[in-house]
Amino acid sequence: MSKGFVEAITRAANQNHSRVVLALDVKGPNTIEKAKKILEETSGYICCVKINKHLILSVGLEGLRELVERAHSLGLPVIVDCKMCDIGPTNLVETSYYFDSGFDAVTVMPLPGWIDGLSDVFHVAKERDKGVLVVVLMSHKGASEFFETIAFDEEYGVFDKLYRIFARRAVKWRADGVIVGATRPDAIRQVKSIVGEVPIFSPGIVVQGGVVEETLKAGASYVIAGRAICESINPADKARELRDITRRFS
Amino acid sequence: MSKGFVEAITRAANQNHSRVVLALDVKGPNTIEKAKKILEETSGYICCVKINKHLILSVGLEGLRELVERAHSLGLPVIVDCKMCDIGPTNLVETSYYFDSGFDAVTVMPLPGWIDGLSDVFHVAKERDKGVLVVVLMSHKGASEFFETIAFDEEYGVFDKLYRIFARRAVKWRADGVIVGATRPDAIRQVKSIVGEVPIFSPGIVVQGGVVEETLKAGASYVIAGRAICESINPADKARELRDITRRFS
Repeated sequence: MSKGFVEAITRAANQNHSRVVLALDVKGPNTIEKAKKILEETSGYICCVKINKHLILSVGLEGLRELVERAHSLGLPVIVDCKMCDIGPTNLVETSYYFDSGFDAVTVMPLPGWIDGLSDVFHVAKERDKGVLVVVLMSHKGASEFFETIAFDEEYGVFDKLYRIFARRAVKWRADGVIVGATRPDAIRQVKSIVGEVPIFSPGIVVQGGVVEETLKAGASYVIAGRAICESINPADKARELRDITRRFS
Repeated sequence: MSKGFVEAITRAANQNHSRVVLALDVKGPNTIEKAKKILEETSGYICCVKINKHLILSVGLEGLRELVERAHSLGLPVIVDCKMCDIGPTNLVETSYYFDSGFDAVTVMPLPGWIDGLSDVFHVAKERDKGVLVVVLMSHKGASEFFETIAFDEEYGVFDKLYRIFARRAVKWRADGVIVGATRPDAIRQVKSIVGEVPIFSPGIVVQGGVVEETLKAGASYVIAGRAICESINPADKARELRDITRRFS
């Protein structure tokens, strides 16, 4: 568990009275300029920034450095939603690139498992006081195909839904957070009862159909908003509107 | 199924009498220069190039363009081993960036499933005559934690090892190839009996302990060699040595 990341997001959430993580999923030309503009406009209404392939592939890590630094100067930690999912040595290289570029937390898919898979990611994150968030259940419709299938949990000797097994592993691995889609509030409740104090991050609100109030009532600590804010005519208004809903749950 | 990618790798394999895919997993400073040098030295002994986070995060997609073009001019297709694993709209953006940068095939993790997950990746690849390779079983020790666990296959109404379910899905999705670690030859045999003519790509030879002969005898069409070649004192000699083994299976 990384004190650094958890403290940073808690501080920002308290300061801005917000449980909204801004996902800077920006498309088309001038991605980085658009992203910077949205960050400036919304920074007072969010508690964290999340960056994924949209920006990494468009401008590379070097091209993101200024944005990450700007978020930090605004008091906001930055998650890189890389959904890391490779063998240990490659994960280690990937993790180092992200942390060296200033990111405060990485997301990992649980599929590679611990030994020679994700163990090194957690070790390095702990050493460097960075966060690791485990994707437990995705937000799209097709997530049910595998995340909700019944599988055998070797550790507990029981059959259970795969995402519930992932949630138990995230606790065992001492994750700094778990990710559960806002589109399945009942699953959030179930994961909450498994992970306890480990914060739940929920993507999939608004555009994908997740409802902010329901998501937070079900047990999520943070909602992740991407297209809802970035593709809004007025990102600041949308961010404030979402912030105002989350404020009632603070 | 992409004629383009499959034809390109088949042509290169026949031309160079090789079943070796070179994984350009290069670390430290001057990654792209090292990668280019290894490509030039080994190009006559390989049938394809694979690029992953090592290079993407170090130089970005723009920084890779020349290398990808050089591989093409040497008659070699290029796989981007991105292990794509996100929701559909993000996967679509990611896929477009890779294909626009000249890559001939992408790798995907099966975990997001089909609907609003991987379906668009396969559709775009088909439209653009590019390849999609599905990771069915990874090569590291911890892969057993989830890939080998027993799960319920909704489509077939049976319990089976998760990697065997992934293999059946890859066939249904019309993948251009599946990836199965060379460290588990028995699993390669099982996957072969499921996927039939769909080529199996096997990483994990030499450094991770996989044995080339065993891997090919078990049913793999291609072996993927990364550190074995890139970290060798003489990459060309090592590539030729591996090529000579695979040649006996052509």
